[in-house]
Amino acid sequence: MAKLMLAFVATALLVACVSAGEASPINDFCVADLKNTLMINGLACKSSAMVMSEDFLFKGFEVDADTNNPLGIGIIPGFAAVNYPALNTQGLSLAKINYAKGGLVPPHTHPRAAEVITVIKGEVYMGFVDTAGKLFAATLKTGDFFNFPKGLVHFQLNVGSGHAETLSVLNAQNPGIQLMATSLFGSSPFIRDDVLERAFGISHDTQEQIRMALVPGYKA
Amino acid sequence: MAKLMLAFVATALLVACVSAGEASPINDFCVADLKNTLMINGLACKSSAMVMSEDFLFKGFEVDADTNNPLGIGIIPGFAAVNYPALNTQGLSLAKINYAKGGLVPPHTHPRAAEVITVIKGEVYMGFVDTAGKLFAATLKTGDFFNFPKGLVHFQLNVGSGHAETLSVLNAQNPGIQLMATSLFGSSPFIRDDVLERAFGISHDTQEQIRMALVPGYKA
Amino acid sequence: MAKLMLAFVATALLVACVSAGEASPINDFCVADLKNTLMINGLACKSSAMVMSEDFLFKGFEVDADTNNPLGIGIIPGFAAVNYPALNTQGLSLAKINYAKGGLVPPHTHPRAAEVITVIKGEVYMGFVDTAGKLFAATLKTGDFFNFPKGLVHFQLNVGSGHAETLSVLNAQNPGIQLMATSLFGSSPFIRDDVLERAFGISHDTQEQIRMALVPGYKA
Amino acid sequence: MAKLMLAFVATALLVACVSAGEASPINDFCVADLKNTLMINGLACKSSAMVMSEDFLFKGFEVDADTNNPLGIGIIPGFAAVNYPALNTQGLSLAKINYAKGGLVPPHTHPRAAEVITVIKGEVYMGFVDTAGKLFAATLKTGDFFNFPKGLVHFQLNVGSGHAETLSVLNAQNPGIQLMATSLFGSSPFIRDDVLERAFGISHDTQEQIRMALVPGYKA
Amino acid sequence: MAKLMLAFVATALLVACVSAGEASPINDFCVADLKNTLMINGLACKSSAMVMSEDFLFKGFEVDADTNNPLGIGIIPGFAAVNYPALNTQGLSLAKINYAKGGLVPPHTHPRAAEVITVIKGEVYMGFVDTAGKLFAATLKTGDFFNFPKGLVHFQLNVGSGHAETLSVLNAQNPGIQLMATSLFGSSPFIRDDVLERAFGISHDTQEQIRMALVPGYKA
Amino acid sequence: MAKLMLAFVATALLVACVSAGEASPINDFCVADLKNTLMINGLACKSSAMVMSEDFLFKGFEVDADTNNPLGIGIIPGFAAVNYPALNTQGLSLAKINYAKGGLVPPHTHPRAAEVITVIKGEVYMGFVDTAGKLFAATLKTGDFFNFPKGLVHFQLNVGSGHAETLSVLNAQNPGIQLMATSLFGSSPFIRDDVLERAFGISHDTQEQIRMALVPGYKA
Repeated sequence: MAKLMLAFVATALLVACVSAGEASPINDFCVADLKNTLMINGLACKSSAMVMSEDFLFKGFEVDADTNNPLGIGIIPGFAAVNYPALNTQGLSLAKINYAKGGLVPPHTHPRAAEVITVIKGEVYMGFVDTAGKLFAATLKTGDFFNFPKGLVHFQLNVGSGHAETLSVLNAQNPGIQLMATSLFGSSPFIRDDVLERAFGISHDTQEQIRMALVPGYKA
Repeated sequence: MAKLMLAFVATALLVACVSAGEASPINDFCVADLKNTLMINGLACKSSAMVMSEDFLFKGFEVDADTNNPLGIGIIPGFAAVNYPALNTQGLSLAKINYAKGGLVPPHTHPRAAEVITVIKGEVYMGFVDTAGKLFAATLKTGDFFNFPKGLVHFQLNVGSGHAETLSVLNAQNPGIQLMATSLFGSSPFIRDDVLERAFGISHDTQEQIRMALVPGYKA
Repeated sequence: MAKLMLAFVATALLVACVSAGEASPINDFCVADLKNTLMINGLACKSSAMVMSEDFLFKGFEVDADTNNPLGIGIIPGFAAVNYPALNTQGLSLAKINYAKGGLVPPHTHPRAAEVITVIKGEVYMGFVDTAGKLFAATLKTGDFFNFPKGLVHFQLNVGSGHAETLSVLNAQNPGIQLMATSLFGSSPFIRDDVLERAFGISHDTQEQIRMALVPGYKA
Repeated sequence: MAKLMLAFVATALLVACVSAGEASPINDFCVADLKNTLMINGLACKSSAMVMSEDFLFKGFEVDADTNNPLGIGIIPGFAAVNYPALNTQGLSLAKINYAKGGLVPPHTHPRAAEVITVIKGEVYMGFVDTAGKLFAATLKTGDFFNFPKGLVHFQLNVGSGHAETLSVLNAQNPGIQLMATSLFGSSPFIRDDVLERAFGISHDTQEQIRMALVPGYKA
Repeated sequence: MAKLMLAFVATALLVACVSAGEASPINDFCVADLKNTLMINGLACKSSAMVMSEDFLFKGFEVDADTNNPLGIGIIPGFAAVNYPALNTQGLSLAKINYAKGGLVPPHTHPRAAEVITVIKGEVYMGFVDTAGKLFAATLKTGDFFNFPKGLVHFQLNVGSGHAETLSVLNAQNPGIQLMATSLFGSSPFIRDDVLERAFGISHDTQEQIRMALVPGYKA
Repeated sequence: MAKLMLAFVATALLVACVSAGEASPINDFCVADLKNTLMINGLACKSSAMVMSEDFLFKGFEVDADTNNPLGIGIIPGFAAVNYPALNTQGLSLAKINYAKGGLVPPHTHPRAAEVITVIKGEVYMGFVDTAGKLFAATLKTGDFFNFPKGLVHFQLNVGSGHAETLSVLNAQNPGIQLMATSLFGSSPFIRDDVLERAFGISHDTQEQIRMALVPGYKA
């Protein structure tokens, strides 16, 4: 019983701590302890004595992500909360995206961070829309960089002849990612039909078609 | 010539200053000088000697916004850069929305601020989707409040029997607003068709229909 | 015993977490768990699985505050730590004030936030003093807004013919409120008499009279 | 004419820049150019080429402040905007206070900073009141330190047998200082009598007496 | 066992909390509980009921630090995590340095804070180097102040005829201190010889000599 | 004359603006206008109308840096103030480093940012020392990442059999770079000999040798 309470409190507290924000770190570092068996889903720090060089070494992008899906993309994060615990309190996170031919990262936002992205392999067309509705886009060749300002909607599309790969760095440890199409048409529960139909100027049938395309197992 | 250079520099500098951020104010206040004829589009401050009580008094919501449009809504801001110059550096902004019967504020984000919203009149259904795709929504009666966390997509719909009105307060002087449907389908220039068609699982015809519905004067 | 220690640590830790600051949230949200029976007086977050739409819906201003007191005012907060747990980490808080005829919110400060305030009902005279000693004040009619910059002393007075009501939004989850008269003359323990007498240029008798007026049960 | 406009714009812009906030500096330093003859009352930076070691050396506390006044205190600031331009963007400011025997720094707040204070000479009683009305006070001997949390009202009183001197460091370049008694009773213009009389539980006569004591030249 | 887990979790969590950052405090204060027997090495807050005036009174500089060492200096901190728990969340820290004749604080940085420093006794030569390689230095007499911008390398040397003493205030609760010579030549484990030899343009012998001088017990 | 004053003010103001900090951007973006002929050395923004997609596209790493120098490295920045103006206000900056065989980036700090670094080509040994003197280092193969916490001293060394290349992203637009050896031994003017000799435990001759090795044209 005490153990249960401990786990509950630990979880609650860790979430509370996690939500404290992207302010300057107070200590040199605070490597997240992801092995903590107390079912802690926040970012507890390892004690300094247990922090090793390896904690700062991230090899997560050694593998490629599986792109065998309708969008033709796969994403591997380098996030403090997931697989790069050293980034806890550091105000940075990583993402590697593999693109099959024609692979598309559909329009999405990062609510809490700005991003720089570079093409590691191939040729990727990408852009963002600002709050005035202006699109800023370009086709990047390997080695080029682009920038997506904080919170603005953006996308990436592999326009090369083969596979592509991009590397992103964002200036928050948990930037968040919100894919617009699925967030709007495939939320849980669904947003009222009329909101979407009127927002996009589509008929109910079209709205149902979109749901069937985006929501696995959805039947109109 | 000197005047032109002055105007140019002033404009450039003001934009630079404006972009400095939502950090704590350095002075008591810094009331924006919106009457400055130097075509300054940022937030120059009036000298202290010229700041009056009236600068802090905002009556902008005395009038109702015109809701005679397809969405049936009208928005009046209370923004430092527009009509409430005292809010410069204060980390706050306001918005009043009038809703005709069935008026809809379509899904949108505020890239740089969190929001609290209250129903002043009528009954409004509203909600947001988090980055896990979960929808949090409720129907608010007059006097109720809701909260939209920073950067997450949300919407509001008048579900009452008559007009409605909401008041929003956001914790940034220029939170930004990005309407998702028009930003994606009606950007300038347009996002490549295939990006939208694949993101939403729609045919080219449907995509064109959406454009015709959302973009005034658009011909497929 | 372990339970007691657990409660103590939990409390201590939560306070530590709470004090981390008004920086950007790390997660979408972190709804405070106010029902936690571990006597946690900070802001533990509910696990995501337990967060519901209702958490973001605040109806706390449905009721009016009791104004049957010498100042003729009553305040209902909308604070993360009190009754609107969804505002935890969101950098926002609310307050509704009911004013009897002539009701007065005496001079006070909010140490950690700026405020926008609007008159919901009636007519309220309000103002703040800046650090140069200049008073900025106005009489607001229903629908008007005013702004109190962070940390500056301000007040509100119902000057209408009946009841009044104001709504405030502040850009911190726990802005703090420090009423100047009672903080200075009614602190616990009292500030040395001579400090107050000399600061205000009053005699000891006057100082005692103020104490008797402001401190319930005080006998000179 | 162009010169006048230049001065006006420069002033306006500098104020705008100044108000940007106490966020991390972008450059190593930004020494304020206080000699700029363009009547600039903000914090323009000297070009790097013109920054010398002497800019960082502050000797402003070599002299004592004149304490020949009713409160028996004198304050010398070490502020970026006044006499220590190197502190611009550094998030720090200084103040030295000389106290005649019995000298009193009456209750005041710093809206935008926390403070540490030490007694350089003599013996000073000081304290602050928190938002729960609790007084934290102590008598400091030479070498002792005290802390006033951000925005909370506090005071200092020389309780030694002779002169006293304190040194304060605050964590903002322009913390602001708001003396409560004079801000409330001696603002410009005055706060309505009834607000103060009711807030402090005093008669109109007493209120007038306070004004006569605090406002030079005031006649009831 | 539960106790061990509790201690472990508490430690982990506190480190997590500590690392949240130097953002604005959420509460009036959060006095660290350093007496917590749970071997908590972070900054748990005492419950408000247990916070006393004495918590804010710091007498740590009553004693002088022992300067009987090769550098001829001794440092006494006033840090939230060490001996001035009230500074937790306050964004400030203190340091007192005693210098024997010729005492030297060798070149070092504070990764997370800016510093103001004053000579309390004696005469101290000090300076910092900016990122352009320019040295800003001066000899301070008693009462003078200097400033070390955040993160830039700096040093202090007693050039007077006797002992000296300085007082530093930094605008972070845990600024960190990194002595460059010992961090580079005496790290644990050592940095590869060739990195240091090439960086400093020294032979292996010289590098070993430096190690022998700086690392107690080191044998080449 | 007016033009000169304008230029001077513009320069001064821009520096002031630049130093405002790494707080959240107020606008979507603020692309620096580096072509401004007014000798502006800060970060004036281009007017929105003049911002193009190309502003966000950075091709600066197309070329390799020249590594024909004693350290065998060359650095190309991607900095708002230098060649990637779109990053102004975005809180991010880039650096590409080319390493000849054995190329060394000697120990240095970034006063104002944390860094993630990845090996694009080759094999690079790198590490940082924390404020407790502990070294965290590893040899990275192509695709691996490492992290250098804010302000801590670190280095990189090409240990592969050929050339190497790394890509760094830092979470500040102007992180600063301070090479420790040259900053300490080659500052302008020089730091007093005795400070360095005692700090490093070296003789005057050795100190002169280091100067001769690090400072071009230096004669003992």
